[in-house]
Amino acid sequence: MCDHVKITVWNEFRHEKKNEKVRKIYPDGMHMTLANNLRRQGNFELKTATLDEPEHGLTDDVLNWSEVLVWWGHMAHGEVKDEVVNKVQKRVLEGMGLIVLHSGHFSKIFKRMLGTNCSLTWREAAEKERLWNIEPGHPVAEGIGDYIELPNEEMYGERFDVPTPDKLVFVSWFEGGEVFRSGCCWERGHGRIFYFRPGHETYPTYHHPEIVKVIGNAARWAKPRLVRPHVCPNVKPIEVIKPREVDLRNLPAVS
Amino acid sequence: MCDHVKITVWNEFRHEKKNEKVRKIYPDGMHMTLANNLRRQGNFELKTATLDEPEHGLTDDVLNWSEVLVWWGHMAHGEVKDEVVNKVQKRVLEGMGLIVLHSGHFSKIFKRMLGTNCSLTWREAAEKERLWNIEPGHPVAEGIGDYIELPNEEMYGERFDVPTPDKLVFVSWFEGGEVFRSGCCWERGHGRIFYFRPGHETYPTYHHPEIVKVIGNAARWAKPRLVRPHVCPNVKPIEVIKPREVDLRNLPAVS
Amino acid sequence: MCDHVKITVWNEFRHEKKNEKVRKIYPDGMHMTLANNLRRQGNFELKTATLDEPEHGLTDDVLNWSEVLVWWGHMAHGEVKDEVVNKVQKRVLEGMGLIVLHSGHFSKIFKRMLGTNCSLTWREAAEKERLWNIEPGHPVAEGIGDYIELPNEEMYGERFDVPTPDKLVFVSWFEGGEVFRSGCCWERGHGRIFYFRPGHETYPTYHHPEIVKVIGNAARWAKPRLVRPHVCPNVKPIEVIKPREVDLRNLPAVS
Amino acid sequence: MCDHVKITVWNEFRHEKKNEKVRKIYPDGMHMTLANNLRRQGNFELKTATLDEPEHGLTDDVLNWSEVLVWWGHMAHGEVKDEVVNKVQKRVLEGMGLIVLHSGHFSKIFKRMLGTNCSLTWREAAEKERLWNIEPGHPVAEGIGDYIELPNEEMYGERFDVPTPDKLVFVSWFEGGEVFRSGCCWERGHGRIFYFRPGHETYPTYHHPEIVKVIGNAARWAKPRLVRPHVCPNVKPIEVIKPREVDLRNLPAVS
Repeated sequence: MCDHVKITVWNEFRHEKKNEKVRKIYPDGMHMTLANNLRRQGNFELKTATLDEPEHGLTDDVLNWSEVLVWWGHMAHGEVKDEVVNKVQKRVLEGMGLIVLHSGHFSKIFKRMLGTNCSLTWREAAEKERLWNIEPGHPVAEGIGDYIELPNEEMYGERFDVPTPDKLVFVSWFEGGEVFRSGCCWERGHGRIFYFRPGHETYPTYHHPEIVKVIGNAARWAKPRLVRPHVCPNVKPIEVIKPREVDLRNLPAVS
Repeated sequence: MCDHVKITVWNEFRHEKKNEKVRKIYPDGMHMTLANNLRRQGNFELKTATLDEPEHGLTDDVLNWSEVLVWWGHMAHGEVKDEVVNKVQKRVLEGMGLIVLHSGHFSKIFKRMLGTNCSLTWREAAEKERLWNIEPGHPVAEGIGDYIELPNEEMYGERFDVPTPDKLVFVSWFEGGEVFRSGCCWERGHGRIFYFRPGHETYPTYHHPEIVKVIGNAARWAKPRLVRPHVCPNVKPIEVIKPREVDLRNLPAVS
Repeated sequence: MCDHVKITVWNEFRHEKKNEKVRKIYPDGMHMTLANNLRRQGNFELKTATLDEPEHGLTDDVLNWSEVLVWWGHMAHGEVKDEVVNKVQKRVLEGMGLIVLHSGHFSKIFKRMLGTNCSLTWREAAEKERLWNIEPGHPVAEGIGDYIELPNEEMYGERFDVPTPDKLVFVSWFEGGEVFRSGCCWERGHGRIFYFRPGHETYPTYHHPEIVKVIGNAARWAKPRLVRPHVCPNVKPIEVIKPREVDLRNLPAVS
Repeated sequence: MCDHVKITVWNEFRHEKKNEKVRKIYPDGMHMTLANNLRRQGNFELKTATLDEPEHGLTDDVLNWSEVLVWWGHMAHGEVKDEVVNKVQKRVLEGMGLIVLHSGHFSKIFKRMLGTNCSLTWREAAEKERLWNIEPGHPVAEGIGDYIELPNEEMYGERFDVPTPDKLVFVSWFEGGEVFRSGCCWERGHGRIFYFRPGHETYPTYHHPEIVKVIGNAARWAKPRLVRPHVCPNVKPIEVIKPREVDLRNLPAVS
């Protein structure tokens, strides 16, 4: 039972409605493909949520239920309401895990959690990507060999403007000549965050077994160890404090 | 010339107006005391800015001039306009240094940069604080001995809800029994951030020569090495990319 | 089964033989007390090993069996054979966990793994220690409240000369005025290392339930995720490398 | 004067004597080429030292003079005497900077400082290497653009078995399909360590102006901020310690 995780997969779900090419790969939306593939991959309970549902599908009930939230967005980051971003941030700081995928690097929630621009260089040329596993002992890389190879992906290149990851698990090689820190771990508050680069909407990346395996591993890794609401308490001393006058007569001279 | 720094000291400047006890210690405001003391401490040019000035004194001209911004706030964090916070964040990510003092742990700009609640435990009991220097070779600790002792300070205790610092320079011991990570370094974008704990308004902390020395050291450390505006460019490949059909017929089965 | 761990507790086992005061607290040696207390604390299999056994009790069989090695030493660090240190280091780099206790900070194996002097300041005055839990969500702190208080301990103070820990879990407050980073995590090779400060031989520290709980937590955290022997392979290219003459005619001029 | 550095370049100096191809590129040895190129690059004083000199050229006088030691070795790591390694380690922990180049990843001093195997994958195929600058604001990357391109280099691939760098400055892309963390910073004791990947003896890498510039930058970054001999002092309490009996009657029961 130690690896049971309750996961909500959130998807913008717009490309799939507008672009036949994308719909062909993800007929019911990326969230459904990913949720179904994750279900087969581990001891997971899964929900999905999308932008156009009320509260973007992220009601208090859904957020309180979720141990890990997976986030994919791209063309409509600006439509995500700040109230929802606030609630997700609060939950992550209390302990919920957050897995941000691909173009989610520019989502409000990712930038909010990290505090940086989260920018990068990019190119859409269906090129080859090879994700090197540089931390084979890390839980997120469990069962992954030396690398994962994807025949077609969008390129993301350095400099990736994020805080230095607590742990860097994957580094990508791209056919066109770039590299990228493509699997990054951070902790914020009591929550764990994993960014995973692959997943452009026009390629079948979330059908790839090893990509799904990494996302499942990340969910197990990001499952809360404790959930604790925010407090900033006024506390009593434990030891006796000796009363002492504040001496304002002899302010030390600054050299 | 390698240690010349242009510094703006920002202060909320409200306690000094309302509370005679604070005014006695900082007759022209904390910002003036700190600016004057810093001026004697290094090769610094100094400006000050306060909440009640237009744009809180942080016009584009002032921000563009500043290499390092020092921030003290407490009772009016909520009055700082989001537009100003946005501009300060943008500047820090471009390279400007940011030094956040004491109760500034709850300022909008500090929480924005770090993404966490920045909470802690606290107590106002005029107790003794001893800041241990755990990184004597770090530029921020230059010229500081084994510890700095303050006879009277407000207590801040762990858990301090911030991302793990890139470097922890000072750890405080409090008479009442607590400890605190009181000198913390982070990098965000191209900018460097230093949080320094001491400085409650009712004690003469910013008259203390070693406290001023640390803030001056931090300014030299946080001076930008480069200033670079935010970009997220679409780039051409450097190497030849072999055209390759996206194969949708044989989507790999997920196990 | 996910938290089953095979642990070997290694003890120098000299103080107990020479000093009646120590023998009174640990009649069969610290290793026996700690092993027995750990046994009650989790799903652990336990072995012990001591300095005066052949190969210090750390035969290949014992090391290969051990998922986590706990190390206590003090007065006879120099008697530990380099061959044994080499073998332990090799095993840790392959994946075995290592928990170093108290005066083990000066053991050969700890200095070997970290590369630094591992020095500190110290005092034996039976003073009060309070270990603050600064990462309540970390596996090593599971079930521990805001702090652990020990009525009598030897003091260790900063600067602790170790590489910046990957994660700092406990910070100690001492009655005599010092602080110390007393619970530190590092990863080396495929292995995880935890240093835990308390445990002077003349105090009953390893009878304290919360101290035992932390050591048990650390064992679960340090259990190998993978075990992999050292290799440094010559590898074939994955992509085609274009033959290219090394051009020595136009060595670039250095400005 | 703030960027003046005293540098000793240490070279094994064996390939140059045995291999005509290498001698053609480095007629007086790599150390002479590198020292001469560094001299033109900054406000540096330079010495050189080689394996076959008495004490490998690293006498107490040379080590005490040196602020930064640059290390290149490959075929004769085993011939470096342990006494010399001990002395260099001691100096680095006291504050001296250490820059380890290319095949120096397997030197005794690098493995000693880091505690790991320092292994990697490798291939000699004269392939193209592109070092991406992922920390353009870091002092080591000063004046370097988005990347440095080398037409011919030996390949080093991940996993590079080193402790997670404090800061990762360069990541290499290789023509044959691999990536590598090729510019890594660590701090150990009071000293700073930089590993820089390029520099196979059969290619003219240390004639390349940007490679020399990075090594010069690293020397300025690694220059000691303080030099302090190792101590582990017994210290007196600062605060009064209340005498307290060690209570052995009621040893807490372990649950």
